[in-house]
Amino acid sequence: MKYAVGVDIGGTKIQFALVDEQGRIARGDVVATEAARGAEGVMQTVVEGIDRVIGDGCARIEGIGIGSAGQIDFRTGEVSFAVDTLPGWTGTPIKQIVERRFGLPAYVDNDVNAAAVAEKCFGAGRQLDHFVCLALGTGIGGAIVESGRLLRGASGGAGELGHVSVDFNGPRCSCGNYGCVELYASGPGIARLARETLAAQGTAAEAGLGAKEVLADWSGGAAYAALVMDRVIRALASAVAGIIHAFNPQAVIIGGGVSGAGDAFFAALAKEAAARTSPSMRGDCRIVPAGVGANAGVIGAAAQVWHYGPDAAASRVAL
Amino acid sequence: MKYAVGVDIGGTKIQFALVDEQGRIARGDVVATEAARGAEGVMQTVVEGIDRVIGDGCARIEGIGIGSAGQIDFRTGEVSFAVDTLPGWTGTPIKQIVERRFGLPAYVDNDVNAAAVAEKCFGAGRQLDHFVCLALGTGIGGAIVESGRLLRGASGGAGELGHVSVDFNGPRCSCGNYGCVELYASGPGIARLARETLAAQGTAAEAGLGAKEVLADWSGGAAYAALVMDRVIRALASAVAGIIHAFNPQAVIIGGGVSGAGDAFFAALAKEAAARTSPSMRGDCRIVPAGVGANAGVIGAAAQVWHYGPDAAASRVAL
Repeated sequence: MKYAVGVDIGGTKIQFALVDEQGRIARGDVVATEAARGAEGVMQTVVEGIDRVIGDGCARIEGIGIGSAGQIDFRTGEVSFAVDTLPGWTGTPIKQIVERRFGLPAYVDNDVNAAAVAEKCFGAGRQLDHFVCLALGTGIGGAIVESGRLLRGASGGAGELGHVSVDFNGPRCSCGNYGCVELYASGPGIARLARETLAAQGTAAEAGLGAKEVLADWSGGAAYAALVMDRVIRALASAVAGIIHAFNPQAVIIGGGVSGAGDAFFAALAKEAAARTSPSMRGDCRIVPAGVGANAGVIGAAAQVWHYGPDAAASRVAL
Repeated sequence: MKYAVGVDIGGTKIQFALVDEQGRIARGDVVATEAARGAEGVMQTVVEGIDRVIGDGCARIEGIGIGSAGQIDFRTGEVSFAVDTLPGWTGTPIKQIVERRFGLPAYVDNDVNAAAVAEKCFGAGRQLDHFVCLALGTGIGGAIVESGRLLRGASGGAGELGHVSVDFNGPRCSCGNYGCVELYASGPGIARLARETLAAQGTAAEAGLGAKEVLADWSGGAAYAALVMDRVIRALASAVAGIIHAFNPQAVIIGGGVSGAGDAFFAALAKEAAARTSPSMRGDCRIVPAGVGANAGVIGAAAQVWHYGPDAAASRVAL
């Protein structure tokens, strides 16, 4: 069996795994990022974690794949632009550091792009050439596969679909725009709408009311949660419809914590998105849950090794 | 000098031209589509027009390029889905009919994709690998070039950027969604906002008030027009900002009748779009007028011949 090391670098934690060609995790661990130490400290943690996962050297390891938060230049393996949660991360030559230290080929991409590779290899994107991934979490991330290729754009920033606006007069977003879809359908977005809805009813929200509680209350039939989720689903469906018109995909694959809301959420979203999409595009496109689950980031990071590496089949190289 | 025949098929007119390798029109004409005759009648007009443009056979013609309204499957050269203005057009095997009749290679694509080829060869997209075209006219069309390739999606429908919503609670669009940007920044969209604005001021709009008149009134300093154009520009800038986050392009190239509004329009749009875009994406991207002008559709249709044909340079094939 062949293996690759996968690393998923986020603002709060870094996940490491030894992953086999079937996408199974042989061993792995998670450590705190401690991002305040800056890029050098984080890269030390990355190198130590890769060392631990490689272990005794008995496994046949073909390369190292890394997914990171922020804007990554896939060709150079450098960080083009870091998010606030990773101070000093911009400019870090991740690929170069890892290749020099371990003498193995390394592949570095944005974390949502890495998750899309996992969906293409092992999940809901198998046998699809055109799909869009949305990760509904603390924010909303996106990744786009078209004609079997990941779209990266001019500087690795393509796919920031959380910053598609659904209300140009809406609340201000950190990106500068107004009414971005992540203000409605991310975890904090859902919590915000819940507080607004309860306030409008003259009720104070309970301390710690988050998206998880709202989704549970929605399943339980709470009236306030139905109002909140109606708005969440209409906003998200509007963005999804725009995405379908822009990319004409075969599937929109939805993952992340919020997507754990289950069948009722997907049924309502698919119905609303279909109603908002031209018949000529609608027929081609399914809206489906991600197939790989919580470890998609680290599994997809590792899977890059086979998809871009020297043994990659012709059909795989394109991705 | 080498030549190609270009054909631009719209709902009201069909334009024909003999185009040289520099993108210059040697001769050409325009005829009414008379779309009510159905696909067979329209194809007869297309074939007759090509015949006229080929003329005495003295020019060295390398192929025939066609752009058509609707959703086109570039690979087969068939119409995947026709718009209402071309009844019965769905399924028409344009490429096959033209190649059989003339014995020349034929290339068929969506009309906005054809215009994007013109911008790539002769206009504002020269030397760019990543750009988005928006055509602001009766509706809003779009075309996306990423890593030098036109994005087509699962069935040739990608790039319908007029149906990116900027208000999920806005007015209903023909596509099924609400608040699509073409309801705000197309010609009829601007006219609609003008009627609304005047009505809110207790003034009836003059008969025949269209986008052209509103833009002239805006240039002339009319107060109502300033209110209208503020809304138009905020809505369009919001969509453009979402498009920049989705595609991370080097440029957004804006053409079509509405873009004829001139420097003040582009300056206001660029300022508002920059304010609505993350700094990491904004720096890479310029918002510029289309460089080819009113004949971009027919010139780009013809230019497909050199960009995909047997003599295409390696760098050109990718498009």
